Amino acid sequence: MKSFHDECAVFGIWGDNEAGRMAYLGLFAQQHRGQESSGIVTLNEKEHLHHKGLGLVGEVFDEASLERLKGHAAIGHNRYSTTGSNLIANAQPLSAMLFSGPVAIAHNGNIVNAKAIREELISQGSIFQGTNDTEVVLHLLSRNPTRDFIQNLKDSAQKIEGAYSFTILTGDKLIAMRDPYGFRPLVLGRRKLENGSVSVVIASETCALDLIGAKFEREIEPGEIFWVTHEGEYSIKIEKKVEKTAHCVFEHVYFSRPDSFVFGKSVYEARKAMGRELAKESAVDADLVIPVPDSGVPAALGYSAESGLPFELGIIRNHYIGRTFIQPSQSIRSFGVKIKLNPQSHILRGKRVVVVDDSLVRGTTSQKIIRLIRSAGAKEVHFRLASPPTTGSCYYGVDTPKREQLIASHKSVEEIREFIGADSLAFLSPDGLMSAVGSKERGFCAACFTGRYPTDLYGLDKE
Amino acid sequence: MKSFHDECAVFGIWGDNEAGRMAYLGLFAQQHRGQESSGIVTLNEKEHLHHKGLGLVGEVFDEASLERLKGHAAIGHNRYSTTGSNLIANAQPLSAMLFSGPVAIAHNGNIVNAKAIREELISQGSIFQGTNDTEVVLHLLSRNPTRDFIQNLKDSAQKIEGAYSFTILTGDKLIAMRDPYGFRPLVLGRRKLENGSVSVVIASETCALDLIGAKFEREIEPGEIFWVTHEGEYSIKIEKKVEKTAHCVFEHVYFSRPDSFVFGKSVYEARKAMGRELAKESAVDADLVIPVPDSGVPAALGYSAESGLPFELGIIRNHYIGRTFIQPSQSIRSFGVKIKLNPQSHILRGKRVVVVDDSLVRGTTSQKIIRLIRSAGAKEVHFRLASPPTTGSCYYGVDTPKREQLIASHKSVEEIREFIGADSLAFLSPDGLMSAVGSKERGFCAACFTGRYPTDLYGLDKE
Amino acid sequence: MKSFHDECAVFGIWGDNEAGRMAYLGLFAQQHRGQESSGIVTLNEKEHLHHKGLGLVGEVFDEASLERLKGHAAIGHNRYSTTGSNLIANAQPLSAMLFSGPVAIAHNGNIVNAKAIREELISQGSIFQGTNDTEVVLHLLSRNPTRDFIQNLKDSAQKIEGAYSFTILTGDKLIAMRDPYGFRPLVLGRRKLENGSVSVVIASETCALDLIGAKFEREIEPGEIFWVTHEGEYSIKIEKKVEKTAHCVFEHVYFSRPDSFVFGKSVYEARKAMGRELAKESAVDADLVIPVPDSGVPAALGYSAESGLPFELGIIRNHYIGRTFIQPSQSIRSFGVKIKLNPQSHILRGKRVVVVDDSLVRGTTSQKIIRLIRSAGAKEVHFRLASPPTTGSCYYGVDTPKREQLIASHKSVEEIREFIGADSLAFLSPDGLMSAVGSKERGFCAACFTGRYPTDLYGLDKE
Amino acid sequence: MKSFHDECAVFGIWGDNEAGRMAYLGLFAQQHRGQESSGIVTLNEKEHLHHKGLGLVGEVFDEASLERLKGHAAIGHNRYSTTGSNLIANAQPLSAMLFSGPVAIAHNGNIVNAKAIREELISQGSIFQGTNDTEVVLHLLSRNPTRDFIQNLKDSAQKIEGAYSFTILTGDKLIAMRDPYGFRPLVLGRRKLENGSVSVVIASETCALDLIGAKFEREIEPGEIFWVTHEGEYSIKIEKKVEKTAHCVFEHVYFSRPDSFVFGKSVYEARKAMGRELAKESAVDADLVIPVPDSGVPAALGYSAESGLPFELGIIRNHYIGRTFIQPSQSIRSFGVKIKLNPQSHILRGKRVVVVDDSLVRGTTSQKIIRLIRSAGAKEVHFRLASPPTTGSCYYGVDTPKREQLIASHKSVEEIREFIGADSLAFLSPDGLMSAVGSKERGFCAACFTGRYPTDLYGLDKE
Repeated sequence: MKSFHDECAVFGIWGDNEAGRMAYLGLFAQQHRGQESSGIVTLNEKEHLHHKGLGLVGEVFDEASLERLKGHAAIGHNRYSTTGSNLIANAQPLSAMLFSGPVAIAHNGNIVNAKAIREELISQGSIFQGTNDTEVVLHLLSRNPTRDFIQNLKDSAQKIEGAYSFTILTGDKLIAMRDPYGFRPLVLGRRKLENGSVSVVIASETCALDLIGAKFEREIEPGEIFWVTHEGEYSIKIEKKVEKTAHCVFEHVYFSRPDSFVFGKSVYEARKAMGRELAKESAVDADLVIPVPDSGVPAALGYSAESGLPFELGIIRNHYIGRTFIQPSQSIRSFGVKIKLNPQSHILRGKRVVVVDDSLVRGTTSQKIIRLIRSAGAKEVHFRLASPPTTGSCYYGVDTPKREQLIASHKSVEEIREFIGADSLAFLSPDGLMSAVGSKERGFCAACFTGRYPTDLYGLDKE
Repeated sequence: MKSFHDECAVFGIWGDNEAGRMAYLGLFAQQHRGQESSGIVTLNEKEHLHHKGLGLVGEVFDEASLERLKGHAAIGHNRYSTTGSNLIANAQPLSAMLFSGPVAIAHNGNIVNAKAIREELISQGSIFQGTNDTEVVLHLLSRNPTRDFIQNLKDSAQKIEGAYSFTILTGDKLIAMRDPYGFRPLVLGRRKLENGSVSVVIASETCALDLIGAKFEREIEPGEIFWVTHEGEYSIKIEKKVEKTAHCVFEHVYFSRPDSFVFGKSVYEARKAMGRELAKESAVDADLVIPVPDSGVPAALGYSAESGLPFELGIIRNHYIGRTFIQPSQSIRSFGVKIKLNPQSHILRGKRVVVVDDSLVRGTTSQKIIRLIRSAGAKEVHFRLASPPTTGSCYYGVDTPKREQLIASHKSVEEIREFIGADSLAFLSPDGLMSAVGSKERGFCAACFTGRYPTDLYGLDKE
Repeated sequence: MKSFHDECAVFGIWGDNEAGRMAYLGLFAQQHRGQESSGIVTLNEKEHLHHKGLGLVGEVFDEASLERLKGHAAIGHNRYSTTGSNLIANAQPLSAMLFSGPVAIAHNGNIVNAKAIREELISQGSIFQGTNDTEVVLHLLSRNPTRDFIQNLKDSAQKIEGAYSFTILTGDKLIAMRDPYGFRPLVLGRRKLENGSVSVVIASETCALDLIGAKFEREIEPGEIFWVTHEGEYSIKIEKKVEKTAHCVFEHVYFSRPDSFVFGKSVYEARKAMGRELAKESAVDADLVIPVPDSGVPAALGYSAESGLPFELGIIRNHYIGRTFIQPSQSIRSFGVKIKLNPQSHILRGKRVVVVDDSLVRGTTSQKIIRLIRSAGAKEVHFRLASPPTTGSCYYGVDTPKREQLIASHKSVEEIREFIGADSLAFLSPDGLMSAVGSKERGFCAACFTGRYPTDLYGLDKE
Repeated sequence: MKSFHDECAVFGIWGDNEAGRMAYLGLFAQQHRGQESSGIVTLNEKEHLHHKGLGLVGEVFDEASLERLKGHAAIGHNRYSTTGSNLIANAQPLSAMLFSGPVAIAHNGNIVNAKAIREELISQGSIFQGTNDTEVVLHLLSRNPTRDFIQNLKDSAQKIEGAYSFTILTGDKLIAMRDPYGFRPLVLGRRKLENGSVSVVIASETCALDLIGAKFEREIEPGEIFWVTHEGEYSIKIEKKVEKTAHCVFEHVYFSRPDSFVFGKSVYEARKAMGRELAKESAVDADLVIPVPDSGVPAALGYSAESGLPFELGIIRNHYIGRTFIQPSQSIRSFGVKIKLNPQSHILRGKRVVVVDDSLVRGTTSQKIIRLIRSAGAKEVHFRLASPPTTGSCYYGVDTPKREQLIASHKSVEEIREFIGADSLAFLSPDGLMSAVGSKERGFCAACFTGRYPTDLYGLDKE
């Protein structure tokens, strides 16, 4: 029940004669990371074939388009849902014919200094088709006179700042590249084919490896450029040092699929641990624990296990919701939320209920859910969030609302409690969150909770 | 993860100027009962307006079609998914112009002696458009010279045998009618409108009442004909006595939404009770309990509560699956199941796992799921079903496979265990099931588990 | 540029393993007779296969649907464009399963006593799906206890009155049947197949025979029932005598394709003859003759040949017009007509122009065309119609406007001239028309011009 | 019945608050010049709004898209039909954001040195999205550091060679620009609005002016840059001199609509004059003259007028043909041609027929048409072409087949006559053609007939 969205999924594969179909499956498994558009580029001999379109993976591709996407290597991309006028021009992978040959690029993240680079490039005569930051990278690559593509990438990395997990396809190689902070996840796996050979697979999340039967090997390291050709595999580091990594903690809180391993840790376990920490920090005398489905389920299980309160599916979610829904003109109480969520009176009536959700952004949905639970007869509603109050926007690839729309940016916890109508309200502390995701071994970015951004923001926060 | 489907949802509403839109919502909430086609007929003054089509509710109706469906009363229908050549002719509600005026009918169930009646009607000159049993009822109504429509329904009820929960719309009334056995659910609710008046709502399941904010009042009784007109509300009984009711126990086991009340009992609670009974009957020394999502979740919660074994989401379900999916030509291990279900190794590895599902039909899916769980590292897999072995087909409106395809019709429990590859296998006993659904107050049909059919089958079992 | 439409095209074929595809071609060639819906039923062994839909032939059928339409015999139908709520139920061929087996029927014409028969059938318990008169025939057939289908047809012919050219397919025969008046055309041809055998082809117009390479043999006679089975060909007469035939003269004036032979005469030649007669009757001193394209072209050629005035394409027609066109909100002079027709100033400027069209119904289009011609600089506009003033509606299968909307029903020729803004106006005389179509050998219905209807109208003229 | 296609229509309008809808109409009137894709860009205040898509004008635009295309100025483009992988990227108008602001460009013609410029631009870091020559112009404009857009256009004109009729829209002006040879037509008109103001209209053909009620004023001169802003209208000349103009004679022979004025002359009159010249040059003893419809009609009228032989529509064309047509697997004699054309035996039987078409390219269609005419019973077939033998490809914007596929490039007239099966064959002489189009006042390009190309071809003829 969140109102923001991740900036996409990437995928790459090398060494499989059904590379296009594998990319389709890899994108399918990562559909939750982007529903606006989907695209695949394959490498067939030395030629690029591509297909992209608006909609879900299953809508964009059909048997005919996959049949056309021949080749032994591919990259793919899902884009998140937004509104805008030139959507198809923003769909990825983006392609260009450079002096060094064809190149296609798929990007998860956000380049914070894209605007300045873009303006400079336009003044030098570059023509931009869309409005996304990734096109800047393509132009930087095209403007570099070097014919050594890897060197070209290294040069570009000196100019761009921010979050990027790339899969890139040229006329002879598949490349995976990740910014030095490691904001977004990017993993490497291998898949044994029937003929005995082994393909290299790159994906945003491990759930994509699982679906196609690939084995997770390791993360692409922050600051690493990894590539594979017919000759072999190579890895170098970008010449740009950062103090420590800044993995996006929101991947664990909300974005990633619970069955993925992200930043070396099971998302499901991280969420359960958040629930446990939350129970330790904010115990309350109650009769049962219920999740806001589906995002709050693991944390609620953790809360239940730690607190000893029984876990119940007090709200049932309807999964048949499509993307358009026609509303009646007369008002139906709590209609907007009830389309998806139905509370169970026989469970809730007369009970003191702990309700667990992953995070709280605007507060309006939480308000509606609490009303729903009360109308089903709950005696007390204790709202518990498995993350701290969201006080800042993200500039590294998460489409959060503007700061003003974040309720915690201008209201105290008590004011929020009053607004959403809970009997009690508690958020997980930043320390509790860090402990749940295992921050000792890893450096995390929690700027949306703390306001401490790991990079310069190039004025993005003032727009 | 079941391979059979219910025969539809019905809906009816009287006394709401947005009756068409309310029917749309009521069908939407009951989408799980039928995805092949959907249709609505409204009563506008004395005229019927109708719209139906193939696909999900959200695909069949748009703003324009709902705008056209004016009127103060409506009935609607969702049909289950099947293959066939003349699908649109079978889509419901079915309509006709009788001597007494327009009539439209929506049917959940199956009329077991439809074939014989149909043949007789054709020999008398009736023309059938589709191949479904409901058309028979329309022809029986049209052939009766009486102009008293309720009498006409009573007369027809003497001729038809089997399962029927009808919503019927004429030129001046909304009718709900249920067979004397009460095979399929049918409920009556009321909804307060903004202007203070109250509309009458009929639905297969209470979840449809919940969505539109209607209050559940009572079930339409087995053998009851209930109707509402501008003058008032009426109720009579069909002149056909049966020894005891035969509510479909499978509604509780699998079909109905967990947030519905069916046959007077919460489906979610019934399923949890099945899990508890199962734990009592078939305890096993294990480390954790996991459900086959989503259908096995409530029973697994019950099993966990009763057994004290921890509950975990050991398998994560991907809800983005559409209706078509393109497979790669190369084999990917367990691909068919993995598209929907991803096991979590970090939870399962080295563990003795109790896996709970609602029922077992062909056994092939269970086999795949168990392979998946083993490949994720589980040490032992103890499969538990929250219902008895399915040994017989249903002729009362559930599209079960033929008897030969039901694995339990020709294999012992031990043989099934071997086939699906479990370390142990146990089914809930018929007594345990009856105890879970509260059969003392209610008579249930469990013919698919016991072979005891409450009615003559008119040769359907020999086809 | 006419605003009325014919009631359909029919087609039938026996003895071709690509019967379905031949029907597709036959309907395609007859697209001008009906654009609302199209349908084909084939006979595969003893089973009927069918496909119909709304739209043009090329929209309704695709490779997949034609592939499914297997069989050695087929009938097909195009329906004219209209508005209505239940279009698909009215699409033909109509099908039913009778006691004698499957039957499908395609109809061109209109049964004038359909309403009375329909009401009687409903009172006897028949259920009607659509609102068209053809369904009445199906019910008459279904109600007859005889198992001799041809006898059944003969019996039905005693009850129905009006215009009908049928192609009918049963489980073992293809039938062509035409009313005793012969209102609508119906022709028989034969086509030599590659394997040496010969198929029997039935069509409304000979242009359908031409496209598939069939040879015209003869008309189906008025009052004839012709059928073909695996055993042979048969022909009988309906037991209903009429004084003389009543071929629809409007087929020659406007409906039929100019390259068809209708009622034994070339439509193109008939139209040229009308133009010649018109020039004899209504000569005028002018500089050139131009047609209203495309319907006025042959008559204008005839007028030019007879009068000696030069023929010019003074108005060019744009054939790219689709069925929807979005208009600007600001007014553009004569926009509605200019979308299709562009006058050529360099031809018309300063000239005295004879403009020839086929007929005049409401007068509004003629008014716009004359304005267009004047705005292009013509000095004088002499409007000539190749048929008499239309004063009555048609009840035999032509969708003419109601009587009140026919300008000639309430205005004199001089008043019409004034209304449309011509310098002179002349219509072809009824005698001239009859002479052009060769009425001596044939009896024609010209009721729309003369008001003399050949049959009782059963109150249709009072509705 | 031609197998080549023009390279597009352009349109522009300034000073109309319904500029987008006017562009829609202007493109609609010019649909014959391009059916692959269509697009419109409007100028709303200082912002560009755009919509383009694959298909006919009526398919690409709907009420919603036109509603969005607000603004007081617009340009539009229709693209011809071809095959290719990246069609949407080639659809025009092409847009870019330059340093000087937004620019959109619509192009009719072909730039012969595009390939060399393109390669140089890529080596300098430009990224190309599509494969068409127009994108080169956009990049030339973007690379020029000047902020004076008109100067930028003048500079670019020094670099590009070939055929171009442009409409261009910037943030504050509408520009029309035509190459010094004047290969492709481009006209200027004005339209009086209801509110008394006057809009400026640019189009490829005058038929676009006619539809929206604009008055033709003059041609945009070869080598002229004309523009209009809120301040006024301006015109300058490109600094590039050519000896004489090279208007494409094929516009008169085939491409343009007969109701257009092109290069100062009525296309219809030019075609009639060709027919007259043809009759003078190649008289033959015959019974009648028939056109190949629709392209041969005006020339056949001219031939008939000059020769005194009667004109007949001996072949009727079916205008209902869509873009896909499913063929039967069995062979039907002359099927491919009969789908569109039906010969009339009653006119042709036993006759000596002069058949007039506009031009002959591969000869295969002519061969089929002649077979068709003979099968309809013609005694003699004298084939007459209203243009000389086509011996060379066009590189100035006409999609002619490659030289090898032009039958006249390797066969003599006598050999062609034998191939197509005519009793006699004659082409209009180059002199006759020039006399018909009035070449004395105007310089024409007839390179496809003469091999004399007015510009360097930059190796295009060797590809």
